[in-house]
Amino acid sequence: MSEVLYLGKAKSVHSTEKENELRLVYLDQATALNGKKKDEIIGKGQLNNSISSEVFRYLSSKGVAHHWIKQLSENEQLVKAVTIIPLEVVVRNIAAGSFSKRFGIKEGTILPKPILEFYYKDDALDDPFMNEDHIDYLDIATKEEVAFIKEQAFTINDCLKELFSSIGLTLVDFKLEFGRDSDGRIILADEVTPDTCRLWDDKTNKSLDKDVYRKDIGDLMSVYKEVEKRLNERKGE
Amino acid sequence: MSEVLYLGKAKSVHSTEKENELRLVYLDQATALNGKKKDEIIGKGQLNNSISSEVFRYLSSKGVAHHWIKQLSENEQLVKAVTIIPLEVVVRNIAAGSFSKRFGIKEGTILPKPILEFYYKDDALDDPFMNEDHIDYLDIATKEEVAFIKEQAFTINDCLKELFSSIGLTLVDFKLEFGRDSDGRIILADEVTPDTCRLWDDKTNKSLDKDVYRKDIGDLMSVYKEVEKRLNERKGE
Repeated sequence: MSEVLYLGKAKSVHSTEKENELRLVYLDQATALNGKKKDEIIGKGQLNNSISSEVFRYLSSKGVAHHWIKQLSENEQLVKAVTIIPLEVVVRNIAAGSFSKRFGIKEGTILPKPILEFYYKDDALDDPFMNEDHIDYLDIATKEEVAFIKEQAFTINDCLKELFSSIGLTLVDFKLEFGRDSDGRIILADEVTPDTCRLWDDKTNKSLDKDVYRKDIGDLMSVYKEVEKRLNERKGE
Repeated sequence: MSEVLYLGKAKSVHSTEKENELRLVYLDQATALNGKKKDEIIGKGQLNNSISSEVFRYLSSKGVAHHWIKQLSENEQLVKAVTIIPLEVVVRNIAAGSFSKRFGIKEGTILPKPILEFYYKDDALDDPFMNEDHIDYLDIATKEEVAFIKEQAFTINDCLKELFSSIGLTLVDFKLEFGRDSDGRIILADEVTPDTCRLWDDKTNKSLDKDVYRKDIGDLMSVYKEVEKRLNERKGE
């Protein structure tokens, strides 16, 4: 018996027999423009489950705390139950996307230091960009928790840059979500996939991420498969 | 002899015989929606010059450093020459305007603590909302300068709340600009007027500020005159 606790755009969350564990189902669905563009893409769920599981395994090896426990099947993984903090934490290494548009900075400009941004996770408000005074007012996290989340996000950035670099990809930017576990400890949650990271191929400079779907510049399945293939080859080495 | 150094939407800036002093001319012009709405309003320049001068006098009495030296004529004031820091510093005491829209907070909601926001002063980009990582990346101010500007903005908020409260007005929110003087010291610059502050009448709750023009809900000249009249009465007491 399992209950659907949450139905997201790319995953559904289900209860398990254990109160402290949840089952995530990665869906065969792609969305962009805050849900205005939406398509069924058979096989996407399986690829993202595989990629995200491999990234979480890597983060474990680097000592980063996260919610992932194990892969259960092609589309499912077992995770620790957390209460998601309604923040999208974006880290940028290279100018792209909304950052480029907002500040008129050419896409591809290397940032001398990573830039961190918080967005309020609220579909109805279109996930607005926010600052730390807003986080405080909305009672999303304490100042100490925000400092911890920022520190963790930069540590994870270092780990992910290294991982993707080892498979010929540049980590341009990415989005993280964190949650509080049953002890109130803040850990990385959600997923790390080409849905949530911009990844540029080191040789061709082409996107191997959801931008191919957002911008209609390539086939999502073939680029996600390429990312999975490179991660698997790395693991085999 | 005087040269026009800058022609803004509500003021022009002119050189004087002294290198360290500038002449500001308050224009009879109102704009809103980042210049998309624009009107000549005869007498507005004089009122804003008078109101801003009175506010700067008050801030002097409270020990706040600023660029204002004296009123020169109905439309003109003499100020210290500063290099404007391209930041719009917004302090909010009550939810209104873009903050209410962005986070779905009812206009008029009292904020338990003031909220500070930075916007990048850049008309072509539509003055985008930014965070401190962006300020650092764009090399607008150092971390220490940003901390000083925030501290000053909250001090000025305390002073202005007191001043406006003494004439029956609630300071909802306002925008400040700062500049660096010839010694590199950061001081308050620009203006403090109903163009840059939201002021609500304590009895009627009506706007006595540029919202009457922005939203077409009243006569700009009569509400600005009311603010000037109350400031003058206070001074006479």
